[in-house]
Amino acid sequence: MRIARFSLDGNVAFGVVEGDELEIIKGHPFADFERSGHKLPLGAEQVRLLSPVLPNKVVAIGRNYAEHARELGNTVPDVPVVFFKPSTSVAGPGDPVVYPGFSSEVHHEAELAVVIGRMCKDVPRERARDVILGYTCANDVTARDAQRAESQWARAKGFDTSCPLGPWIETELDPADLAVQCTVNGEQRQLGRTSEMVRPVEDLIVHITEAMTLLPGDVVLTGTPAGVGPLHPGDEVAVTIEGIGTLTNKVVNRG
Amino acid sequence: MRIARFSLDGNVAFGVVEGDELEIIKGHPFADFERSGHKLPLGAEQVRLLSPVLPNKVVAIGRNYAEHARELGNTVPDVPVVFFKPSTSVAGPGDPVVYPGFSSEVHHEAELAVVIGRMCKDVPRERARDVILGYTCANDVTARDAQRAESQWARAKGFDTSCPLGPWIETELDPADLAVQCTVNGEQRQLGRTSEMVRPVEDLIVHITEAMTLLPGDVVLTGTPAGVGPLHPGDEVAVTIEGIGTLTNKVVNRG
Repeated sequence: MRIARFSLDGNVAFGVVEGDELEIIKGHPFADFERSGHKLPLGAEQVRLLSPVLPNKVVAIGRNYAEHARELGNTVPDVPVVFFKPSTSVAGPGDPVVYPGFSSEVHHEAELAVVIGRMCKDVPRERARDVILGYTCANDVTARDAQRAESQWARAKGFDTSCPLGPWIETELDPADLAVQCTVNGEQRQLGRTSEMVRPVEDLIVHITEAMTLLPGDVVLTGTPAGVGPLHPGDEVAVTIEGIGTLTNKVVNRG
Repeated sequence: MRIARFSLDGNVAFGVVEGDELEIIKGHPFADFERSGHKLPLGAEQVRLLSPVLPNKVVAIGRNYAEHARELGNTVPDVPVVFFKPSTSVAGPGDPVVYPGFSSEVHHEAELAVVIGRMCKDVPRERARDVILGYTCANDVTARDAQRAESQWARAKGFDTSCPLGPWIETELDPADLAVQCTVNGEQRQLGRTSEMVRPVEDLIVHITEAMTLLPGDVVLTGTPAGVGPLHPGDEVAVTIEGIGTLTNKVVNRG
């Protein structure tokens, strides 16, 4: 099932996407919900897709594809590299990615995003799939120059609009071997498969929840395949993941 | 004014602390509020102080006291070290600090915490004080072994209960030159003054909000003075800041 969050004439709701239709649901996807029977065309002018979830925190993993680690001159770490992107970095499909004033080298990083469905801590590997509501596309937008200059990545990877998510949550999907692609202005820049992850989704959930509680709506970013590169104001960047869909954002200068 | 958050017979409210009394307020401290006239003894059995704020994010600064940077073999960085502690790491006064399973070297770090009062981005230096609601005590509890082993500090400094805050927010305070002290089982371990900060509070707010929006209730941790050291289950750790009060927590083994 595909679950989108959207605004309609100023109201925000969740809906189920089927083909070109969006059916409004009563309630939210983190508990049992009912379909309302009220359907809208997905492309209707008054419908605007939003980030499918408003995470309290985004927990992200660095260097989880060996070829990407190598392209930036890094080795694959013995222990996963774990960092945060704050809730204020989240953007929705179609939202602008605003080039931050402190950087002149902003990169795209296409990633599979895991949406957590229930509060959890110390999750055993065999239960990892149970805490997942579904999957969406993410762009772990990174100020590469700031990342090089600052030992911790809070500014480089945590600036406002640096975490586009969407277009919706796909709840029935096996994350083990999906194509992850990034294009800029229609040209392919990144292409990898989730099967290349150094540590698969289940291992990441075990590792993260050893330390901290994940809440419903929290998001885990699983690392980016090789091919990262610069974005410039005016660029249209699109992340496509097999079985989910495409997340598109335009890069803009600060207003 | 001292503003505390507390539970009373299962209900959570804010109150103004004056001497040994707690007066319940109507509303919350991030907007105009009224005093209710309803007063309680601060030490009453049914009153339990909570973390004075539930931050969406905690933005913390590393190596902001030169002597502390040196004691861990680090230099003072050219650009402030900025990292996050998630909302799930927050604990209140009197709450246990739970020793995480992945560490055998957990350290105390006494810090002045700044509580943000209004949504802000790109704050000019001369307006930095305007976005601050007040100040409280924090312990930036750190799994030092994990911090050494992992390039990003999300697990080392973001585990559950690694961010005790309290006992209340002091709204009328000049943060420029306050004594910051940490004791363990009554013995002094850290003692410094906020005047020793490499970058004062105003500069930190400018630097952080260059990149990201701060929300009402977000917390900025301002770095720790020299003298950090290990905590062990059974220890009682207390952070005292001049003009605010004392935040006390007990270290416990995982249940």
